[in-house]
Amino acid sequence: MLTRTASILCVFFVSVLSVRYDPTWDSIDSRPLPAWYDEAKLGIFIHWGVFSVPSFNSEWFWERWQADRTPEVVNFMNNNYRPDFTYADFASQFTAEFFDANQWADMFKASGAEYIVFVSKHHEGFTNWPSNHSFNWNSMAVGPKRDIVGELAASIKTNTSIHFGIYHSLYEWFNPLFIQDKKSNFTTQNFVKQKTMPELYELINTYKPDVIWSDGDSEAPSDYWQSKEFLAWVYNDSPVKDTVVTNDRWGKDAHCQHGGYLTCHDRYNPGKLQPRKWENAMTIDRHSWGFRRNAPLSDYLSTEQLLATFIETVSCGGNMLMNVGPTKEGTIHPIFEERLRDVGSWLNVNSEAIRSSRPWTTQNDTLTRRVWYTMNSSNVYALVLDWPTGSTLSLGAPMTHSGTTVQLVGYSGNLTWTARSGKGIDIHIPPIPTNKMPCKWAWAFKLSGLGNI
Amino acid sequence: MLTRTASILCVFFVSVLSVRYDPTWDSIDSRPLPAWYDEAKLGIFIHWGVFSVPSFNSEWFWERWQADRTPEVVNFMNNNYRPDFTYADFASQFTAEFFDANQWADMFKASGAEYIVFVSKHHEGFTNWPSNHSFNWNSMAVGPKRDIVGELAASIKTNTSIHFGIYHSLYEWFNPLFIQDKKSNFTTQNFVKQKTMPELYELINTYKPDVIWSDGDSEAPSDYWQSKEFLAWVYNDSPVKDTVVTNDRWGKDAHCQHGGYLTCHDRYNPGKLQPRKWENAMTIDRHSWGFRRNAPLSDYLSTEQLLATFIETVSCGGNMLMNVGPTKEGTIHPIFEERLRDVGSWLNVNSEAIRSSRPWTTQNDTLTRRVWYTMNSSNVYALVLDWPTGSTLSLGAPMTHSGTTVQLVGYSGNLTWTARSGKGIDIHIPPIPTNKMPCKWAWAFKLSGLGNI
Amino acid sequence: MLTRTASILCVFFVSVLSVRYDPTWDSIDSRPLPAWYDEAKLGIFIHWGVFSVPSFNSEWFWERWQADRTPEVVNFMNNNYRPDFTYADFASQFTAEFFDANQWADMFKASGAEYIVFVSKHHEGFTNWPSNHSFNWNSMAVGPKRDIVGELAASIKTNTSIHFGIYHSLYEWFNPLFIQDKKSNFTTQNFVKQKTMPELYELINTYKPDVIWSDGDSEAPSDYWQSKEFLAWVYNDSPVKDTVVTNDRWGKDAHCQHGGYLTCHDRYNPGKLQPRKWENAMTIDRHSWGFRRNAPLSDYLSTEQLLATFIETVSCGGNMLMNVGPTKEGTIHPIFEERLRDVGSWLNVNSEAIRSSRPWTTQNDTLTRRVWYTMNSSNVYALVLDWPTGSTLSLGAPMTHSGTTVQLVGYSGNLTWTARSGKGIDIHIPPIPTNKMPCKWAWAFKLSGLGNI
Amino acid sequence: MLTRTASILCVFFVSVLSVRYDPTWDSIDSRPLPAWYDEAKLGIFIHWGVFSVPSFNSEWFWERWQADRTPEVVNFMNNNYRPDFTYADFASQFTAEFFDANQWADMFKASGAEYIVFVSKHHEGFTNWPSNHSFNWNSMAVGPKRDIVGELAASIKTNTSIHFGIYHSLYEWFNPLFIQDKKSNFTTQNFVKQKTMPELYELINTYKPDVIWSDGDSEAPSDYWQSKEFLAWVYNDSPVKDTVVTNDRWGKDAHCQHGGYLTCHDRYNPGKLQPRKWENAMTIDRHSWGFRRNAPLSDYLSTEQLLATFIETVSCGGNMLMNVGPTKEGTIHPIFEERLRDVGSWLNVNSEAIRSSRPWTTQNDTLTRRVWYTMNSSNVYALVLDWPTGSTLSLGAPMTHSGTTVQLVGYSGNLTWTARSGKGIDIHIPPIPTNKMPCKWAWAFKLSGLGNI
Repeated sequence: MLTRTASILCVFFVSVLSVRYDPTWDSIDSRPLPAWYDEAKLGIFIHWGVFSVPSFNSEWFWERWQADRTPEVVNFMNNNYRPDFTYADFASQFTAEFFDANQWADMFKASGAEYIVFVSKHHEGFTNWPSNHSFNWNSMAVGPKRDIVGELAASIKTNTSIHFGIYHSLYEWFNPLFIQDKKSNFTTQNFVKQKTMPELYELINTYKPDVIWSDGDSEAPSDYWQSKEFLAWVYNDSPVKDTVVTNDRWGKDAHCQHGGYLTCHDRYNPGKLQPRKWENAMTIDRHSWGFRRNAPLSDYLSTEQLLATFIETVSCGGNMLMNVGPTKEGTIHPIFEERLRDVGSWLNVNSEAIRSSRPWTTQNDTLTRRVWYTMNSSNVYALVLDWPTGSTLSLGAPMTHSGTTVQLVGYSGNLTWTARSGKGIDIHIPPIPTNKMPCKWAWAFKLSGLGNI
Repeated sequence: MLTRTASILCVFFVSVLSVRYDPTWDSIDSRPLPAWYDEAKLGIFIHWGVFSVPSFNSEWFWERWQADRTPEVVNFMNNNYRPDFTYADFASQFTAEFFDANQWADMFKASGAEYIVFVSKHHEGFTNWPSNHSFNWNSMAVGPKRDIVGELAASIKTNTSIHFGIYHSLYEWFNPLFIQDKKSNFTTQNFVKQKTMPELYELINTYKPDVIWSDGDSEAPSDYWQSKEFLAWVYNDSPVKDTVVTNDRWGKDAHCQHGGYLTCHDRYNPGKLQPRKWENAMTIDRHSWGFRRNAPLSDYLSTEQLLATFIETVSCGGNMLMNVGPTKEGTIHPIFEERLRDVGSWLNVNSEAIRSSRPWTTQNDTLTRRVWYTMNSSNVYALVLDWPTGSTLSLGAPMTHSGTTVQLVGYSGNLTWTARSGKGIDIHIPPIPTNKMPCKWAWAFKLSGLGNI
Repeated sequence: MLTRTASILCVFFVSVLSVRYDPTWDSIDSRPLPAWYDEAKLGIFIHWGVFSVPSFNSEWFWERWQADRTPEVVNFMNNNYRPDFTYADFASQFTAEFFDANQWADMFKASGAEYIVFVSKHHEGFTNWPSNHSFNWNSMAVGPKRDIVGELAASIKTNTSIHFGIYHSLYEWFNPLFIQDKKSNFTTQNFVKQKTMPELYELINTYKPDVIWSDGDSEAPSDYWQSKEFLAWVYNDSPVKDTVVTNDRWGKDAHCQHGGYLTCHDRYNPGKLQPRKWENAMTIDRHSWGFRRNAPLSDYLSTEQLLATFIETVSCGGNMLMNVGPTKEGTIHPIFEERLRDVGSWLNVNSEAIRSSRPWTTQNDTLTRRVWYTMNSSNVYALVLDWPTGSTLSLGAPMTHSGTTVQLVGYSGNLTWTARSGKGIDIHIPPIPTNKMPCKWAWAFKLSGLGNI
Repeated sequence: MLTRTASILCVFFVSVLSVRYDPTWDSIDSRPLPAWYDEAKLGIFIHWGVFSVPSFNSEWFWERWQADRTPEVVNFMNNNYRPDFTYADFASQFTAEFFDANQWADMFKASGAEYIVFVSKHHEGFTNWPSNHSFNWNSMAVGPKRDIVGELAASIKTNTSIHFGIYHSLYEWFNPLFIQDKKSNFTTQNFVKQKTMPELYELINTYKPDVIWSDGDSEAPSDYWQSKEFLAWVYNDSPVKDTVVTNDRWGKDAHCQHGGYLTCHDRYNPGKLQPRKWENAMTIDRHSWGFRRNAPLSDYLSTEQLLATFIETVSCGGNMLMNVGPTKEGTIHPIFEERLRDVGSWLNVNSEAIRSSRPWTTQNDTLTRRVWYTMNSSNVYALVLDWPTGSTLSLGAPMTHSGTTVQLVGYSGNLTWTARSGKGIDIHIPPIPTNKMPCKWAWAFKLSGLGNI
């Protein structure tokens, strides 16, 4: 494996030092992903905006209300607001009085995440920074009266080693410039030239994010969005050219095909190894990215469910970007915080099986369900989502030999095992009292000296 | 005088039929003003916008608060709003629940005005119509949820013979695009190209106003504003090319020099005959164009003061554009309504001395103070602001001869008179009981058969 | 007349010095009205409360909405508020930020009024002072956060010689204690004992008003209200026992019959001499006591109409209590201010015909319409609402003799006259130019040395 | 023990059938507590009111702000509200739009609680029902426009077998009637007679609660509060006389001494057996009873901590009343819901050790820390808060004999054990895999056939 790593490093340094990228997908796709991203495995996604004021249904509130006429949303407005209340009227109630970027940074650090992706602007068009291209529809001019992106970026960079990233929606549902371009079948580009691109350049130059998570691309091709030109600039000349990663939502021709890593669709989790680096962007509230004031407990994934998804994702070569939705007041609710800290406590124990791991030859064990593999330079890890019900854990994929050792990560001593005929291993599970278990929710069995690493 | 009128008509028809204008001041200035404007004499100016929500200090509230730090305004905010309240937060309180364009139209008609100029957008940048170039900072998207310009235009055109006009501010105090252009010493034009011009074309094409009252021009030259190109289009190709009049606030090189009629500075009232058609844009509330909730009676001009200004203005060749400020609820307060109806009742009596009148050779009588002259094809009118204290009104300017007759407009019968030596006339004022007076506030003496008409 | 005056004074001093009143109507009715009240002639009524927040329909907004279901009001709420908005929710929007008692005092002084009656609590039950008996439904606890009654009382007493009075509603539409008493057919008195009486005593002891203007009595008898006991205390022992006047709305048995002076019904104006002192409580806005944000000019009485009513009222022995409705912000709108100052300017000229005047033997002239009489110790005043159309004013009531002189109040010199055969006088009206008239709207002819004074 | 139970039943039936109580503590204290209460063990306390609008610091927000001037609270107001904002102004923002009593009932049922105590009125005086004695300061008149107590009572009674109880504060911090009574050294009782008692009778008669949880008594004696008279009525004649339980906060002479069961001080947890039935009223948010929008996860007790407190409480003869604070919107946040459901899931397994249990002779084991005992008719339960670290659990208090059997509740089969010398038992802990454990957080060892039951 040293050879492979070295070659990656080689390509990387070459790229950093001398390669320039053209505004073509071939050239853009040829850029190696900066190594930190694959090593990070876990990121936190944060959806915050004017939609956090109604905080009902989802962050798609405006579209549901005005375009789709979703009865739940229409009724909510009818029952709770004066007839002529508009979506933009919500903005002045986006108060953010409890928003403390340092508290958030502390919480993200505790989760074990190594990057965050913060919604700088969602499809509603409201910029969470004082953009020069969103007059009176930004977080300094109405509502919070604060540079939210700026405060969070500064705190993350000062207080943590977390990579700061931004989400940015290319399109805006109700921006008349976009609607006009769309009516012209995207033969005009007033929206892109006056809004999308100026604000994207402003964002990158001002806040220097290490992740640019694009969205809202799917109605138009990348030519319309000027994505390739933008990405070439990002990779060649931007202040983050050496560290930044981008995703794939840069036009309907790019989606799931071009750009940096692949996100494909929301909650993308293919369940098998992928040829390119990918990311599973998913939500703790299973129904919404924005905070919903009325979401019951049953709508929140349990820590067990989160870790199962995370392990499956990592095993198949993905990162997981786990979403939380702050309140309009600026807090991240304790139910989210609990999930983040739980995941972090698990990662503290099992870090070696996740961080900087790589997919193994097998992802999902052939014999026992809900067992996923990762590996690093010398070990293979079998991540077990269900503690064995008997005294044996039978795995079909590992090929043992005499020097093979087995350990339970976080538990001292070697476990005894028996080779299965042909291939596979029966690990003898000792009777560990509940309070001696290294962790909850999932367990990593470290297999060293395997024949098929 | 027939000759002069005929030549004007001739020029006018020629212009209508075939002349095209170039984007140069020489060409633009050569366009004859459509006749209706000079004949109208009285217009109503209406300032309504987000500034009508604080409704304090003036329509310059935002600039006073944030840029000038005027203590009165800063204290008002400190005393009445939460610390982080922003100007844009006011917009959702712009409710307009009582706005009824038909009621306004009725009131304007009663005032005797023949045109109105409605603020479509003031320096705050808020468009009172659903502009495609002011996303979420317009009257459909936030606050009223109505197309205010559209409702008023429709009502005025349907219910009255009043000419509908719009006021439009070229600059916007806090629009970052403008601020950037200004920082570049107006060598960039992003603001003009993305905001000012698109919305101006949209306005003219959509609402077809007969007056385009430009403002906010003075920081930059007309080249920056693209005013000449715009005016050439207005005069050559716009839907109102035959009827529209414009003013002179199209750039610091145009101000008081070029364009349509001259407005020069606010409350412009030069007191002597001007070579070009001009307008005295003034306010009934002597301190503000926008409604001030706390203005006491003493801040409102009396009907007597309004008519004195009006008569002086007309005598010197101007029109008067008299401003009212609606409330955020959409009403025009009874104190304004009273002034409008009073002026209208006076005009009903004295129409012949005002409507379609022209300046005479003399404006201000040489012998008696506060007497101003107008004329029409056959008569000269001496408009007297103070009823004579004795039984004689002595005027220095008229030259009588034997066929001269004198009448008090609205009062039956001829008045006797005596020629003054050399020039001038002593009109004998009969003892008219107060309840037989034709009107209040000012009186028109009609002099027919003068030697010097 | 001296005899009569002396006897009144005599009774008055006796009463002040030694008389005590019993809680019976006979005893209470026997108290002479303190002289200042009859001399004052003009008072200003001020209706301000939570109803000034919707400021729509009238101060009966709550009852119209919830009890009567008046469509106009129901629709207003449906169109402008969220479905569950309550009347009490309005209170926090009663901001009073511009309320300046000194400005009000100045305005009232300019009107020529010699007393004011301020709504301390209307039927809604909201107390404009921090009552101990209206927890969280008073102007200190919610909304203004000010002792409105206290501020106004202090300013009036400090800055003017105006008598400060308060209006107080006995009943409260929706107070459950009142509703319960009513259900018991007023055999229980929980509301009176816990609410009405404690707060009335508190009001009188704290603010020492010279007028107690009771209202809201008509559903129950005075026995229920404990009115007689209260009035006996007011007249015997209260801090204002020597100066206070009260009205007659103290129970359905008292209405228009007992108490201090009579108000009978709203806008009471009987048009003929009354045996007891009475008051015409009326409104400048002809439809409402509370301010209506959407009232057009035509709903406001003109100064001419106000003075006609005032003169008729005084001629028939009444006082006029002229109502203004402040805005929720605490201003009295310029249209009200203009009326107040106009009336004051007229009174400045015509004071002698009004102040301290008494009714004459005739009220309404027998020959000429719209002529009303007053008198003082030596003169009779014919108050003429229409300036004579010819050169003679013919009056039927006065009986002249040779020493009779006639003057126009405010105009120097005597007018000539001719006795009519039998009775009556023809006054010769000189040709006074409009600008030499002593006043507008109505004129007082002073007749001295009449035969029938 | 049968004898004791029988005698209790005997006393109980006698009391139900014929006993009447006098308004003396001796008589009131003699009433046996209805059996359901002791059997229930767990209740849910719910604090909801206007304090849930600022939702900051605690439900004592008003007192902290206005009386104590707590800097945190004063600053919060200064930073987020206009200067004249009052506490009562918050009420109109108490919207309760998501309040669904059925959802709450479902959540409470899932917690295993057998009674709830809902704040009908806290020290702020706001009644969560349309009281006839709290005009415009109740949940029907301002804010929610709903009968909250009524909706919750109906749902609990219809959908669950949970006993519905109410919390009620005798005093009100800022009610002027209370302040006056206090100034008179409680020699006057206007507040009690006009407010406290009428509303308490109204509450009991209308909503028929099985728990009356009094509070706010401590500044005045029970004579002032008329508590004894009220309790005598509750026990003799109220609609809940047979089922109701009350607590002890009925006057400073009653506190922790008289009434029904004892609550003494908040979070009362004496740690040893008490002679009378008592209750530990405590909070999941360790700092507040009302919801705090900015409370971080660390302020919420973990399920482990809650169960430790619960077990200790039950072991010492108490019930635990566990508090949740709903939001102003009417939701109970998922972090609370999670705790409730966790506790319920534990109770589902361990019910037999808790429900209808009684204290044993020993509470806290003498040999092993954090072991607490309960018993029922035939078994003793050792509730172990820490799973044994070795293979033996040594208990000092039980006295075994040959027929003694030991089981782990929820785990099949008997555990082997060895008698300790003298007294005590060593229970042999089998190696149970983590996923075979009957429950988390705490475990009940059932000891049958003990020598010292």
